[in-house]
Amino acid sequence: MTKVDLNCDLGESFGNYKIGNDEQVIPLITSANIACGYHAGDPNVMAKTVQRAKAHDVGIGAHPGFPDLQGFGRRNLDMSYDDVYNMIVYQMGALKSFCDINDVKLNHVKPHGALYQMGAKDKDFAKVIAQAVYDIDPNIIFVGLSQSFLIDEAKQLGLSTASEVFADRRYEADGQLVSRKKNNAVIKDTDEAIQQVIDMVTKGKVTAINGQEIEISADTICVHGDGEHALEFVKQIRQQLSSANVDIVKLGG
Amino acid sequence: MTKVDLNCDLGESFGNYKIGNDEQVIPLITSANIACGYHAGDPNVMAKTVQRAKAHDVGIGAHPGFPDLQGFGRRNLDMSYDDVYNMIVYQMGALKSFCDINDVKLNHVKPHGALYQMGAKDKDFAKVIAQAVYDIDPNIIFVGLSQSFLIDEAKQLGLSTASEVFADRRYEADGQLVSRKKNNAVIKDTDEAIQQVIDMVTKGKVTAINGQEIEISADTICVHGDGEHALEFVKQIRQQLSSANVDIVKLGG
Amino acid sequence: MTKVDLNCDLGESFGNYKIGNDEQVIPLITSANIACGYHAGDPNVMAKTVQRAKAHDVGIGAHPGFPDLQGFGRRNLDMSYDDVYNMIVYQMGALKSFCDINDVKLNHVKPHGALYQMGAKDKDFAKVIAQAVYDIDPNIIFVGLSQSFLIDEAKQLGLSTASEVFADRRYEADGQLVSRKKNNAVIKDTDEAIQQVIDMVTKGKVTAINGQEIEISADTICVHGDGEHALEFVKQIRQQLSSANVDIVKLGG
Amino acid sequence: MTKVDLNCDLGESFGNYKIGNDEQVIPLITSANIACGYHAGDPNVMAKTVQRAKAHDVGIGAHPGFPDLQGFGRRNLDMSYDDVYNMIVYQMGALKSFCDINDVKLNHVKPHGALYQMGAKDKDFAKVIAQAVYDIDPNIIFVGLSQSFLIDEAKQLGLSTASEVFADRRYEADGQLVSRKKNNAVIKDTDEAIQQVIDMVTKGKVTAINGQEIEISADTICVHGDGEHALEFVKQIRQQLSSANVDIVKLGG
Repeated sequence: MTKVDLNCDLGESFGNYKIGNDEQVIPLITSANIACGYHAGDPNVMAKTVQRAKAHDVGIGAHPGFPDLQGFGRRNLDMSYDDVYNMIVYQMGALKSFCDINDVKLNHVKPHGALYQMGAKDKDFAKVIAQAVYDIDPNIIFVGLSQSFLIDEAKQLGLSTASEVFADRRYEADGQLVSRKKNNAVIKDTDEAIQQVIDMVTKGKVTAINGQEIEISADTICVHGDGEHALEFVKQIRQQLSSANVDIVKLGG
Repeated sequence: MTKVDLNCDLGESFGNYKIGNDEQVIPLITSANIACGYHAGDPNVMAKTVQRAKAHDVGIGAHPGFPDLQGFGRRNLDMSYDDVYNMIVYQMGALKSFCDINDVKLNHVKPHGALYQMGAKDKDFAKVIAQAVYDIDPNIIFVGLSQSFLIDEAKQLGLSTASEVFADRRYEADGQLVSRKKNNAVIKDTDEAIQQVIDMVTKGKVTAINGQEIEISADTICVHGDGEHALEFVKQIRQQLSSANVDIVKLGG
Repeated sequence: MTKVDLNCDLGESFGNYKIGNDEQVIPLITSANIACGYHAGDPNVMAKTVQRAKAHDVGIGAHPGFPDLQGFGRRNLDMSYDDVYNMIVYQMGALKSFCDINDVKLNHVKPHGALYQMGAKDKDFAKVIAQAVYDIDPNIIFVGLSQSFLIDEAKQLGLSTASEVFADRRYEADGQLVSRKKNNAVIKDTDEAIQQVIDMVTKGKVTAINGQEIEISADTICVHGDGEHALEFVKQIRQQLSSANVDIVKLGG
Repeated sequence: MTKVDLNCDLGESFGNYKIGNDEQVIPLITSANIACGYHAGDPNVMAKTVQRAKAHDVGIGAHPGFPDLQGFGRRNLDMSYDDVYNMIVYQMGALKSFCDINDVKLNHVKPHGALYQMGAKDKDFAKVIAQAVYDIDPNIIFVGLSQSFLIDEAKQLGLSTASEVFADRRYEADGQLVSRKKNNAVIKDTDEAIQQVIDMVTKGKVTAINGQEIEISADTICVHGDGEHALEFVKQIRQQLSSANVDIVKLGG
């Protein structure tokens, strides 16, 4: 039976600042990418989010990002490879510590924002990220953009990988996401988005913006928990996947 | 044979900013307290310092502090107990990650600056710090001010403890350090300071400022690496301890 | 005719994090205390908030706080007086810069959170804050807790002051706020709160928790913009003050 | 008589961290670029540095940079133009506040590190920086790399500009600095460096690495204060400029 994971970024609140509906989305997903205090999150939020994920038997993942709280880790930062490597070791260790005291496994890692985008497009950069993860624990599942350098380099090192797809984003013919700077980057029609998900998961195919049908690996689907609409969308994805006989299970499960 | 540990705060540089003579002091000590990125240190510095400590077979300790780089962790901050607990879990995990990738043990922990001082004087505060350490790993050796709540609470939880003494500081009759706000807080005469160390380590006694001889536990001596004088002082302490037949070995060794 | 100012903390968002209903509350108030990037706010938020305040002809005030974004400036921090003085100069200058480019006056200053509380209770601390404000511009109106050291010290230096009262907080017989740690610190009944405001503004009196009627200066009332209830409460205060023939005008107006 | 300014980056210390020999270099220069707390510096350091510059009658300049203390503002950060504009308003205002309380003028501005480099090469980026400066005060002198977009855009807006040259860097035929990634980027021979300075200042010419003599504007020379050699080098530059009948005066002087 075909299976897929649903992942969502969680634990993005900071101090007095709240973001996301973590409580409401967590029962709907199978893997949580938890911010590690650099682009979002703080130790209190991390503690609570790990406990919450454990309570719902959701897979716990580190979600390391650039040290840029104001930019939410979404702005490219020209760090050296050593800087990148060490900040990933730091952030993953910090999150793992909360896993350890809660007696739960650190199951996966997914780079955040600009770190993810830079790794997806740059082979050497991707390798540094993957190497840091591998050195920390070669059994951690590495989540990256499907068909990108992130996945290639992680595989090359011997890491288990999970190719990520996006329900509401359109794809170029080479398998990359259409840039958000373009008008047609996002699928606004819910039915169309859900059909794309079903096709990616069950057939391993997606129709690129040039009309060409291309192959795509879809191990995990990125969903969002912000706003009523987002939650509704996740519920519909779950329902349609079940109808299509797709099992929704956490990474590695 | 009597034994004692020599500990020193290391890895306090940050980005472009350098502090300390880590390379020169590390061959002279047996335990390194490594800053974890909150009051000092950054991931690159942590990586290098762990490697350096391993190369010299120096015991590695986490040195968590308040999130206050400008104040170097020396300013009291009125955090809630949850904040304190979680920020220790965070910092220790971050450092442990560098230990893990270098295949070396996280041997001890010593709270830094204002965190150390507040824990030494406040029973509940001390308990929170000790509890965080215990929950992370009950085998980590807990370093705290000799005769203080830090040691009491850590023992109470079942942690191994190391009572810390200061070569160049004077003591009150109740075993506490004379406040730096007082004129006679620091021993400026090197011979006097060394004699105090020898007496604390070999006899378990120190003469308080009121002239009374009091008992004191001395498992580890805090030394500094800043400046030529400091290094010379550490060398003399080593020499005099050896002459007094004291073994200088790392914590737990 | 009696007059009073309504002040509210604004511009507390940070990067991707949003706090407060600034757009909705700003038409209801006469003075805005704008966060300066230390405990909350960032340059983009400051720019937008100054423009918004100008558009509504609301008095602009600097709202400096401790450098503690995670704690939202609400945690006591044991800074030296020099640290406090200089960080106020820094934050007020930063905000004044946005006033200058928008051709609008920096009208007042109100310390935030723990800085405000520490200044209210500690004469020397209050003096340092007031001195920094005076040195920057002796014409800035200094807002502080009514009957506190903040007001005393600012007056002593020759600053114009505005004594602040709270609609929904109860008072001790000495004029200080009942600590939030006590059960009866907050007035939950809206009518009672509004009556207290009216009495403070029109009679200069408030009934302390021990039943005693004490004198209180009420130049400005602190209101909040978070949540539907808060906005409704501000509207009622405005209405009742008008009914009581009290003019609602900005500080210095 | 020909004249030139000598500028140096100052006030780069932070909290417990010290960088630079500000006391020793300040009597040798005519303009100080003072860090504003984002890439370096803190309010205490800014206060002291402004006072020191005033005492030596050195021109005071703001030296705004990216919010990246760990990277010392030297790492490119992909900020939006609004972010850049507002963070310059913020930093310049903060520094101006220290000028105001010390009754001294904010004379110039020079972007720092990656902000300077990105502005030098990108016309739109340069325009945003210059616009922020102009909006704060059109009388501030704008310091930028000679022959770069920084100077062009500042002039376009009507700002007074000061074209900066480097004593110890080699130039491309188009007037840009040879990248530090190339071997021959830096002139290591002191005599050669000084001769280049003299030629740039007195003849308005420099020999590019391809051997071609090109025109260059040299209103201000960037010097460094770190290390004994740097100070000696500044002294020699001063001496040789005097011998060549060049007046060393601060910007606008």
